[in-house]
Amino acid sequence: MSRSEHPVTETDTQYLAHALEQARAGRAEGGIPIGAALIVDGEVIAVGRNQRVQRGSAIHHGETNCLENAGRLPASTYRRAIMVTTLSPCDMCTGAILLYGIPRVVIGENRTFRGGEDLLRSRGVEVVVLDDPACAQVMSDFIAAEPALWNEDIGE
Amino acid sequence: MSRSEHPVTETDTQYLAHALEQARAGRAEGGIPIGAALIVDGEVIAVGRNQRVQRGSAIHHGETNCLENAGRLPASTYRRAIMVTTLSPCDMCTGAILLYGIPRVVIGENRTFRGGEDLLRSRGVEVVVLDDPACAQVMSDFIAAEPALWNEDIGE
Repeated sequence: MSRSEHPVTETDTQYLAHALEQARAGRAEGGIPIGAALIVDGEVIAVGRNQRVQRGSAIHHGETNCLENAGRLPASTYRRAIMVTTLSPCDMCTGAILLYGIPRVVIGENRTFRGGEDLLRSRGVEVVVLDDPACAQVMSDFIAAEPALWNEDIGE
Repeated sequence: MSRSEHPVTETDTQYLAHALEQARAGRAEGGIPIGAALIVDGEVIAVGRNQRVQRGSAIHHGETNCLENAGRLPASTYRRAIMVTTLSPCDMCTGAILLYGIPRVVIGENRTFRGGEDLLRSRGVEVVVLDDPACAQVMSDFIAAEPALWNEDIGE
């Protein structure tokens, strides 16, 4: 089921599986379970996950780590990309999506946190929220277990 | 001279010197000359510079590299910090400033590029633009010399 006004394609759910796999891998490492995948022309060209714990990082969130792993890309590639993320993107990751002109964002869930979706839409980005129960479960389990770590990651 | 409605303290110009030093060091490495410094309680706790060329990075801009170099900090530290940057912050760096609730941003110049200043102000961040000729010169020289590299960095 989708909360979005946009149609959900079968592939959105398939893409999300790659991001969720990253989130779970991050949790298994003791990290914050947020993952992302960058899709170009139907292919997963990069994945990433939050690295606050693993690297002591303030800037490697799921989406930004994914962009970093994708490497330097021409604008024309970003312009046909989809950013898939398990969780609604924070202000920084929202800004990274806008910087590179990524036209479509697929979000696993926004129940546990809601970031810059309105800003993305106001700048013409298509935002699809899948409201995926598995993504919400991973995050709600994590937030219950490590509230201080979660607050640190969202600057609270 | 300031274009800002906010008063410029003597220390803003002093802080900017640290960011400009970073920008120049980046250019000397063959990189994009944008630098930043994070100030807490009047002390420079971290500096950083754009790492697109040096690290092949899509996410280490001046401000984000500075935040990464500062390491994991509690929200209470960000809340009394100043982000000083040689150039008006792009959408991603604007978002990073908002994520961490940094209340004040000092910008060297916004002649060569103007980023998310309005969004910062709309979210209650104090934005000071110093309109520093040396910062503008470093960037305009760079843009003239390497327009393709510059466009890549701003997603164009």
